[in-house]
Amino acid sequence: METISIGLLGLGTVGSGVVKVIKSHQDKLIHQVGCPVEVKKVLVKDIQKVRDVDIDSTILTTNPNEVVANSEIDIVIEVMGGVEETKNHLLQALENKKHVVTANKDLMAVYGAELLAAASSNRCDLFYEASVAGGVPILRSLVDGLASDRITKMMGIVNGTTNYILTKMSKHGSAYEDVLLEAQKLGYAEADPTSDVEGLDAARKMAILSTLGFSMNVDLDDVKVSGISSVSEEDLQYSKQLGYTMKLIGIAHRHGEKVEVSVQPTLLPNAHPLASVNDEYNAVYVYGEAVGETMFYGPGAGSLPTATAVVSDLVGVMKNMRLGVNGQSAVLPQFPKQLKKDDEIYSKFFLRLHVVDEVGVLAKITSIFSEWGVSFEKIMQNPLKEDNLSEIALVTHRASLKDYQDILVNIRDLQAVEAVKSSYRVEGGMGA
Amino acid sequence: METISIGLLGLGTVGSGVVKVIKSHQDKLIHQVGCPVEVKKVLVKDIQKVRDVDIDSTILTTNPNEVVANSEIDIVIEVMGGVEETKNHLLQALENKKHVVTANKDLMAVYGAELLAAASSNRCDLFYEASVAGGVPILRSLVDGLASDRITKMMGIVNGTTNYILTKMSKHGSAYEDVLLEAQKLGYAEADPTSDVEGLDAARKMAILSTLGFSMNVDLDDVKVSGISSVSEEDLQYSKQLGYTMKLIGIAHRHGEKVEVSVQPTLLPNAHPLASVNDEYNAVYVYGEAVGETMFYGPGAGSLPTATAVVSDLVGVMKNMRLGVNGQSAVLPQFPKQLKKDDEIYSKFFLRLHVVDEVGVLAKITSIFSEWGVSFEKIMQNPLKEDNLSEIALVTHRASLKDYQDILVNIRDLQAVEAVKSSYRVEGGMGA
Repeated sequence: METISIGLLGLGTVGSGVVKVIKSHQDKLIHQVGCPVEVKKVLVKDIQKVRDVDIDSTILTTNPNEVVANSEIDIVIEVMGGVEETKNHLLQALENKKHVVTANKDLMAVYGAELLAAASSNRCDLFYEASVAGGVPILRSLVDGLASDRITKMMGIVNGTTNYILTKMSKHGSAYEDVLLEAQKLGYAEADPTSDVEGLDAARKMAILSTLGFSMNVDLDDVKVSGISSVSEEDLQYSKQLGYTMKLIGIAHRHGEKVEVSVQPTLLPNAHPLASVNDEYNAVYVYGEAVGETMFYGPGAGSLPTATAVVSDLVGVMKNMRLGVNGQSAVLPQFPKQLKKDDEIYSKFFLRLHVVDEVGVLAKITSIFSEWGVSFEKIMQNPLKEDNLSEIALVTHRASLKDYQDILVNIRDLQAVEAVKSSYRVEGGMGA
Repeated sequence: METISIGLLGLGTVGSGVVKVIKSHQDKLIHQVGCPVEVKKVLVKDIQKVRDVDIDSTILTTNPNEVVANSEIDIVIEVMGGVEETKNHLLQALENKKHVVTANKDLMAVYGAELLAAASSNRCDLFYEASVAGGVPILRSLVDGLASDRITKMMGIVNGTTNYILTKMSKHGSAYEDVLLEAQKLGYAEADPTSDVEGLDAARKMAILSTLGFSMNVDLDDVKVSGISSVSEEDLQYSKQLGYTMKLIGIAHRHGEKVEVSVQPTLLPNAHPLASVNDEYNAVYVYGEAVGETMFYGPGAGSLPTATAVVSDLVGVMKNMRLGVNGQSAVLPQFPKQLKKDDEIYSKFFLRLHVVDEVGVLAKITSIFSEWGVSFEKIMQNPLKEDNLSEIALVTHRASLKDYQDILVNIRDLQAVEAVKSSYRVEGGMGA
């Protein structure tokens, strides 16, 4: 067999990793595929730039057509990021019958369905394992490993930056702003951390996971998002005291034919497998009707972990080339998308309030919960240093999101309630 | 496309699960494969037996040839257990061009290479995901998900019975015998628990994992095994005090071209991802050169989890049938087997001694370690209730197994050493 030629779009952190993994593991690749793999052309912004990777500068180009329209190239690997322009490059590559491997979650969360359709109609492979949880082969596990099961719930720690920040805040009692600064210094958070800390990055990954796991087209717009920028030390303190660990959790839950997909700071029981996933690590917890609880854990980002996923996808494409079966393995969504309404979403909730420290306040609050038929799992009250104020932290039993929101409106209306300080979901009971 | 016909060898716990999963998830299977799946014949020992599964009794047979030599059957699923006779059934099925899915670790650990060769020469698929860690798709992850990486270490909690026993002993301070009895009552341990508690079951799984992960033929005989039957409450107590958790760990370690594969009770730092895998759950921790640390967690046994893995393999076979590429995906071992000798195996070690409580004993012991150039990470001494005896528990820094064994011989020779009570490996430092 001849050499298989790769075109690379992008030579940043992940792109350099891809070049390194292909070089250092060339023997293993040849053993699996039966022929050598060569990087033929690489699209970069600046050819002169000094790089942390050993690459022949004559194969660098600033012209995308030298990659996506290059008749010598079999497979295009996209690690340049971006959405609109990048989509056009990939559509062009597919029209030119080039298989595509991408690590681009932003792109797949928005244009995944369109790109997969283009791949299918051109009989090309389009693989994107690296787009979710970097080095963790979660997409394959959903599609192949759990092919026979019906997945009903996925919970993911799918953003390393926020997990790093929450872990440090929780361990050292530090403030959000201080840990964010530290994370930026260490390279765990970007200069503009918005997409990470506000949950958008995690939302993109949950859209991709839900689409595969539930076999329906879930878009980024379907994912309800809230981030961690307003999580306080006090919230983490109370979490601990109540026996919970706070994580930014992507929840994808199917009940009957309807699904809920959301991302928010969430309290998990300490014994839950996700609760001990710390620092910048990622993990996806999957609940299947037959298999029960499984979890997939590993590095969520980084040059070589992400490159591993990209090159493993590349191996998949090359194996298909050898067998002549490219573009035939994608399974299109089986079900129409049906999203749950707020009165169909059930959860436990954590609530922290500042109230006036006077007789009967707790009774008023609890009676509002009773009116909606919601009872408590745990409740704590502590005096505050400020004059005549008390802090109440509570965890409810399961209630619908709609009922809980109605309860909150009524609690805010109470004169004795000085402020609703914070409110989070509590997840991770039995089989859920 | 026509119906695909399955022949089942065995209708016990897993076999019943397979029938249930095929029935309950028929829609998903049809969506993925494009045609219905039907169980056509089932080999059982006793046709009359009352079963916990809804099945037409006319398809039951006691004659294996009605399955393995049945021209109407496309795929044989083996869930009957056993080794010699079962191997012959499967060889016959493969010669009759039937694809095979098996959940049989005993068989694959001993005759895996022979069966895979037979499958390959008959252009048939032979899949065995369910043989290791039940519902956890670990074999696919090694072969596909980490296809581009060089795996250097795997550590597995791959036996649910022993993990259940150690978890209960550790949590409740109970004695081994008491917990074993309880586990037998609850169905977590068999009437004859030898294969589980002596580590043989785990050793089989480690042979399978090492063969795939290191791409060399590792046999059951290559795996050094010791079980948990002599683990005492005191050992678990000291583990805790020193900041470790004891687990029965299968270790597969590659260094250069040589490997070590073993199964033994092992102390892991509490923060290691495997340390919080409790009860009957399994997990495989995989370290790859590029990807770093990953872990795959889930139920290690049970009817439906194991059936999920079997039926997911079945989906794989059927997808290959649709594409006409059966028998072409297996990658044969790339490297000749090279096992490490004891002076090439490095680890930390835990040692517990009873010594005579007199001046200079600790100095004698530590000077033996010094002679071999081995230093200590932690050391504790406590008086014993018995007359004039003291208990010493220590954890060494890294040393070769050979040196450590020599040290032990010399320590046993000391007159002041009343008894070497226990000795375990300590694993799980950085990237290892």
